[in-house]
Amino acid sequence: MSDDTYWTGDPYELLRAEPGFRLADQPTDATPGFKGGKADREKALADGESVLAGLQELLFACGREGESRSVLLVLQAMDTAGKGGIVSHVIGAMNPGGVHYAGFGKPTPEELAHDFLWRVWREVPKAGQVGVFDRSHYEDVLIGRVRNLAPADEIERRYGAINAFEQELTEAGTTIVKVMLHLGRDEQKKRLASRLERPDKLWKFNPADVDERLRWDGYQDAYQLMLERTSTENAPWFVVPADHKSYARVAVQQLLIVALQRLDLRWPTPNYDVEEQKRRLAES
Amino acid sequence: MSDDTYWTGDPYELLRAEPGFRLADQPTDATPGFKGGKADREKALADGESVLAGLQELLFACGREGESRSVLLVLQAMDTAGKGGIVSHVIGAMNPGGVHYAGFGKPTPEELAHDFLWRVWREVPKAGQVGVFDRSHYEDVLIGRVRNLAPADEIERRYGAINAFEQELTEAGTTIVKVMLHLGRDEQKKRLASRLERPDKLWKFNPADVDERLRWDGYQDAYQLMLERTSTENAPWFVVPADHKSYARVAVQQLLIVALQRLDLRWPTPNYDVEEQKRRLAES
Repeated sequence: MSDDTYWTGDPYELLRAEPGFRLADQPTDATPGFKGGKADREKALADGESVLAGLQELLFACGREGESRSVLLVLQAMDTAGKGGIVSHVIGAMNPGGVHYAGFGKPTPEELAHDFLWRVWREVPKAGQVGVFDRSHYEDVLIGRVRNLAPADEIERRYGAINAFEQELTEAGTTIVKVMLHLGRDEQKKRLASRLERPDKLWKFNPADVDERLRWDGYQDAYQLMLERTSTENAPWFVVPADHKSYARVAVQQLLIVALQRLDLRWPTPNYDVEEQKRRLAES
Repeated sequence: MSDDTYWTGDPYELLRAEPGFRLADQPTDATPGFKGGKADREKALADGESVLAGLQELLFACGREGESRSVLLVLQAMDTAGKGGIVSHVIGAMNPGGVHYAGFGKPTPEELAHDFLWRVWREVPKAGQVGVFDRSHYEDVLIGRVRNLAPADEIERRYGAINAFEQELTEAGTTIVKVMLHLGRDEQKKRLASRLERPDKLWKFNPADVDERLRWDGYQDAYQLMLERTSTENAPWFVVPADHKSYARVAVQQLLIVALQRLDLRWPTPNYDVEEQKRRLAES
């Protein structure tokens, strides 16, 4: 169902982390499945905006009429991998009235006093919405594991808890699209350095970003384990090479388009008599 | 501070409902302050997108660094006046990660069991955010008054309660931009009729829209009273003629741009030593 003007294959198939997937073998500067160069990727992104916006309006309309379907995009990545750009350039094309964005930062004391899924449940999309998680419950098996923020057996327990949570959401009508933006170590260094060169980007830099960077290998191991344990049939992971921002954006856009197309939605049938309403309106 | 390429005057001044303002005297098909025709309005809107997005990023950056400022756009109007288009075409230009959208529909039983401001408080923007209320607490003095959904003395009480609420928000750092989209009665009839002609728009039509239309004069009176009682110095109302969608959009965009410019924000000074971080990063 992918767009063959720009794609040699369906990113939904090409980018999925299947059993046996090894993160360390995946180049971060590749552009799998896309036919052209940067200019083509930018054109494809611009072309895709109205397609995505149209599908989202259809989802929203169905939600209003009692359909239980929704879509949830989960974004995970190392710092500077481009989550913010995806939110702005891909999600930004949809009507804000039908999008529910949730960014998950360092847990608050209230959040820490609950199970790790508590704050996540509060932000899942309603029927008809496209939800976006900018970081997510996966932080609890990523930074949680790398920095030993919970006992080892609790971290172990979480993979199963996440799979059960996502199965519940899926059964209730949510299509979950989980994207790991896969960034190269050198590319991250460049991007962090460029934030330190621009007065209007200094606010995006945090010394803690370097602390996390120093644990790069630990994070790659934690991501590998996350992919192995939680890339399920219900809710597979997609690993998107992210050194080229234009590729990552158009690939995530296409993943959302395909996810929405697969719902095969139709404009709802009105629960009123159209001709009767035309008469009432004419007389008003 | 308005953009004089397109504007003969500042919409922040031109569109404000001052004491003595009479809604019935305002044409709904005017384009006050704007120099050109439809094509110019569309070009101005496109030009303004990056300006608005840039100002919003600055607000967001300041919010992250402890500034308490935020902006809240309140949208009120008769059905089909174009609230949805404003959300999509004006708000949609900003990064969804910094925007908080809240649509207020018919209150739920839980909402009705609380004071009318309860559900509104839960949705006010955080520091750094641009909040959008698609309908708002003003419904409680509009449909609330027209349909006698509360005793007369309770409706009366609400104007003062709203002013106190908005003063509290303003003092805490929120700039409130209240917009009434002012639509003509005939134009509404056309727009409702066109929804009944298109299979992909039938879901937007609700027979209750005609019921409300039949109370047109009652609503105009309720709006007039709302403007008189709640257009304060802190939080003035702007009445935007809405028969031309392209005008309403560019006018609301300009109101937001001016509101953000008036905050006179600067990129935050980093709370870390930039040179030290460059060294740490180089070694990483």
